[in-house]
Amino acid sequence: MPLVRISIPTGKVEGYRTEISNQIYEAMRETLQIPAGDRFQVITEHSGGTLVADPSFMGMERTADFVLIQIFLSRGRTTEAKQSLYRSIADRLAKSPGIRPDDIMIVLTEVGLEDWSFGRGEAQYVLNPPAWAKKEKVPA
Amino acid sequence: MPLVRISIPTGKVEGYRTEISNQIYEAMRETLQIPAGDRFQVITEHSGGTLVADPSFMGMERTADFVLIQIFLSRGRTTEAKQSLYRSIADRLAKSPGIRPDDIMIVLTEVGLEDWSFGRGEAQYVLNPPAWAKKEKVPA
Amino acid sequence: MPLVRISIPTGKVEGYRTEISNQIYEAMRETLQIPAGDRFQVITEHSGGTLVADPSFMGMERTADFVLIQIFLSRGRTTEAKQSLYRSIADRLAKSPGIRPDDIMIVLTEVGLEDWSFGRGEAQYVLNPPAWAKKEKVPA
Repeated sequence: MPLVRISIPTGKVEGYRTEISNQIYEAMRETLQIPAGDRFQVITEHSGGTLVADPSFMGMERTADFVLIQIFLSRGRTTEAKQSLYRSIADRLAKSPGIRPDDIMIVLTEVGLEDWSFGRGEAQYVLNPPAWAKKEKVPA
Repeated sequence: MPLVRISIPTGKVEGYRTEISNQIYEAMRETLQIPAGDRFQVITEHSGGTLVADPSFMGMERTADFVLIQIFLSRGRTTEAKQSLYRSIADRLAKSPGIRPDDIMIVLTEVGLEDWSFGRGEAQYVLNPPAWAKKEKVPA
Repeated sequence: MPLVRISIPTGKVEGYRTEISNQIYEAMRETLQIPAGDRFQVITEHSGGTLVADPSFMGMERTADFVLIQIFLSRGRTTEAKQSLYRSIADRLAKSPGIRPDDIMIVLTEVGLEDWSFGRGEAQYVLNPPAWAKKEKVPA
């Protein structure tokens, strides 16, 4: 169910994009328990001046390889789950395709279960809430 | 008031984009009762690997014509209104420009009435809430 | 902490983009009291038919120079602070690079303090809330 918008610099090889896509998906599988196949991403490439990130804010050392990851997901994950997600994404992207953790920014935006239609004009989660939402108590 | 981000594959004719734009606007007129002219959309085109959608998640059969529609709108619509919106968008796009309902994903994100400035540096809905917000009781 | 998505028409000189970027950052410094260096923006350029804005909705006179500014920021700002932000952005962009206030649309989306990772896989605001969130009472 998460929708992920990934902004990267231009000029990377195709395998670079694929690896970012794969690793973010695996991190969400691991830490958010999303089901297999729940993978929806928009990847955009940006030339120099159009992906703006302060080089040192919050004590980081950011470079031209800065990557912005914005994730829209259903409400109800704990702060601990979100922290695990951040760690997993940073660890995985550091290993492959090899992005420095200082260059990885992540922003979440929460939406409701009724805010998703995966196709056919239906609101799938209204009738069938996802497993994690049934098990845990979801805050309003 | 809704802001709509529409992600489509590259290589479609201009009329294809226009028709998607028109039909989504008409669907919001019909099911959300937005006023005439309330039309703000960003359409982006994506080549092969950059618009990622699982081919079968949630029982769909998705193709290269997959379209992602993300709508930012004010809080307060009922689940039933959202379901009507999904159905209307899918029905309309199936008729024209002819997009298979399995290929249409919609994600909503709610914001507050005070979160909009339509121009001139003013927050128009703070002083003049939209008609639907006056009529219905809007949850906090 | 705000993440800003700025959509402008294609064909503007680079200085145009830089000035928009600078002025929006300064407006957020002034009205939201964001710290120095808290600057993260994605600027995208759109040709004719892909940045859709009604020419007159809400009494504006919009032109081909229409600019859409979407800001994701942490919950807790007052309506008055948001109104100050809108005014400051419109005033500044009118002065430089010279955008008519009718052509400036702004949309905010609020997220939580735990929804940000500025790098290294950490959730910086969970351990160290920003100054404005400590001073003011932040609604849940």
